[in-house]
Amino acid sequence: MSCPRKISRSVLSYGTQRRYCSGLKPLSNSSRSKRPYLIRAMHEWMVDNGHTPHIVIDASVDGVRVPREHVKDGKIILNISDTAAHNLKLTNNAASFRARFSGTPFDVWVPMRSVLGIYARETGRGMIFSHDSGSPDHRVSVDGDTTRSRPHLKIVK
Amino acid sequence: MSCPRKISRSVLSYGTQRRYCSGLKPLSNSSRSKRPYLIRAMHEWMVDNGHTPHIVIDASVDGVRVPREHVKDGKIILNISDTAAHNLKLTNNAASFRARFSGTPFDVWVPMRSVLGIYARETGRGMIFSHDSGSPDHRVSVDGDTTRSRPHLKIVK
Repeated sequence: MSCPRKISRSVLSYGTQRRYCSGLKPLSNSSRSKRPYLIRAMHEWMVDNGHTPHIVIDASVDGVRVPREHVKDGKIILNISDTAAHNLKLTNNAASFRARFSGTPFDVWVPMRSVLGIYARETGRGMIFSHDSGSPDHRVSVDGDTTRSRPHLKIVK
Repeated sequence: MSCPRKISRSVLSYGTQRRYCSGLKPLSNSSRSKRPYLIRAMHEWMVDNGHTPHIVIDASVDGVRVPREHVKDGKIILNISDTAAHNLKLTNNAASFRARFSGTPFDVWVPMRSVLGIYARETGRGMIFSHDSGSPDHRVSVDGDTTRSRPHLKIVK
């Protein structure tokens, strides 16, 4: 499930090449969640800045495979930097990678809807998503500006 | 300027391959704007949804190369779908492509900081950015949830 098809895109930055498995299938509806797209964008932005991306996972979501002993208050924070997360895949369905927890390797697999946020350890900057992630993202603000059903360019400070 | 280095990433979706020129250079500071990352993400999301991405440009920004006769109130809206925008590049510095305006081809080049927003024609959904784009984006909300200097997972509906 981590990579339904052998479709991948390569992202070159800082002279290194990371791989995202897009795992894209023809769309059956027009309301695909933008969450995985934003998570990939934020991950790339953080790595290009030399920062360490972390994702916050709701460990109660069905299908989450994480080391349970590291779950606190139903959440687990995972380092998905290149050095910590091996064979990282950020598909439209899930994030998956292999990491070591207290020295023990573990194959993490988490559905995208369990990803509550992504932030850089060094700055705390990133994105926090709503909990009900099965539905598409309805509103996005950047710099305090908000998207609307029709674009208006009024700036909300 | 449109593509400082011959670095590109390929994005496969819907069986078609689009190309983004990343044009990434080693970072000189830690506050690179996330705007181009989000624009690429939104563009990909819209195309994967079968929608038609448009960008809104502040034509008064230095360096903007657009057909002036189509500028209205200092703005121009450009269709950057695969069928309308040929050789589209969305780098960290600029968006560039060739398009036809009233039948006449034109090589568009717009700095990222002139991009005020991106939205899908069919839905109006997308992102609107603040005008002062030289600085990095400070706040991002998704699904009504807001990023903070340190991540808090409280959901703001």
